[in-house]
Amino acid sequence: MNVGTVSQHISKQFDNELENIRERVLVMGGLVEQQLFNALKALTESEVEFAEGVIKKEPEVNRLEVSIDEDCTKILARRQPAARDLRLVMAVIKTITDLERIGDEAEKVAKMAIDLIEKQGPKSYYVGINAMGNHVRNMVHDALDAFARMDTKSALRVAGEEPKSDEMYVAILRQLITYMMEDPRNIRGTIDAVWTARALERIGDHARNICEYVIYFVEGKDVRHISIEQMEKEISAD
Amino acid sequence: MNVGTVSQHISKQFDNELENIRERVLVMGGLVEQQLFNALKALTESEVEFAEGVIKKEPEVNRLEVSIDEDCTKILARRQPAARDLRLVMAVIKTITDLERIGDEAEKVAKMAIDLIEKQGPKSYYVGINAMGNHVRNMVHDALDAFARMDTKSALRVAGEEPKSDEMYVAILRQLITYMMEDPRNIRGTIDAVWTARALERIGDHARNICEYVIYFVEGKDVRHISIEQMEKEISAD
Repeated sequence: MNVGTVSQHISKQFDNELENIRERVLVMGGLVEQQLFNALKALTESEVEFAEGVIKKEPEVNRLEVSIDEDCTKILARRQPAARDLRLVMAVIKTITDLERIGDEAEKVAKMAIDLIEKQGPKSYYVGINAMGNHVRNMVHDALDAFARMDTKSALRVAGEEPKSDEMYVAILRQLITYMMEDPRNIRGTIDAVWTARALERIGDHARNICEYVIYFVEGKDVRHISIEQMEKEISAD
Repeated sequence: MNVGTVSQHISKQFDNELENIRERVLVMGGLVEQQLFNALKALTESEVEFAEGVIKKEPEVNRLEVSIDEDCTKILARRQPAARDLRLVMAVIKTITDLERIGDEAEKVAKMAIDLIEKQGPKSYYVGINAMGNHVRNMVHDALDAFARMDTKSALRVAGEEPKSDEMYVAILRQLITYMMEDPRNIRGTIDAVWTARALERIGDHARNICEYVIYFVEGKDVRHISIEQMEKEISAD
């Protein structure tokens, strides 16, 4: 579904403004995806430069958030959007908050990657973290894809992936605790891995939030704080 | 400064609507404060019932978020607010997101309190967590107070307290790691304490965010992602 086509306004300029904020969200999303990709690459391939690149680029994510937020406020003030247009602006305002937080978590992963590379700890637990990293990275990618196409079915599917990232997190945590118990000298080096897993788990949460805003925009229903099953019912109720 | 007096509208009804969402934010804030208080009480006094009460009340926080969000969308659609009124609505939309997350973190603390009570682990590290709990609880209280009075000076002061909660967190983490290293059997019981400290640290972040929205509302300046020193300059630049 193309938002530009759906919202045909007398003012072509207004259409352009709405299309523009939507595109900027996707630019911000692309940057955040890249940040996450690089942070995970730094971690799994012990590439310090990738981690440093992520830290260097972080302010750009923040600037995009502030700037898109400003655009939204301007549209609200000048265009006084209603119905579907208003929901788009609201969905954008919320989506960029979650994107910015994903960027924050990616930066944390990058910082911990640098720490872990320096400590040269054992990498046996990287397999689990890497798998979890790929899982949440796909979630972010697919959530942005659902946002781009305003596709509730995809959004619902991606939101349904979130419990799996929770499960992966619990499994990794269990493995890390065992590892720490085997030899207390492992604790310092492992606690960063614990944080990394935690950061990835939060990224999964944020990806799910973005999916909820897509459903809110298309269906006009607030599906936060309810289960995936309830979400399915809400959508099929139409 | 009283928002009701500042925004004198021809429509008394519009004034009432704005005042109403502002009051509802404070009701939600009061509930979240109480949740945090009870979660910390459960933890420090090993009172399971308090923790259970927090878990039971959590959906109420979520409902308030969804409901206030709806009110804001209605005001945007019907009243098409501009300038200061629009900034108030935007500040409210963002504030309730952070309040909801503080509620989430309080619930996590409550769940971990139950876990820690069951495990009957040693409580020597509770002193630090308790002190940190009081610190972030005061931050939340004072941030809501700054919001109620729309007082930028208080907001700035509270935002300036955030680095201290970070320091407390690092100190507690160091203490907990040492404790885990002393005896690996302590690890399982201590990891919950680590999460608790992490949850409290995040609550400090959310309190700071609320202060930033207060400054945005009063000054019309987005002070996110900048240092406290820069924030001070931005405010005194008027």
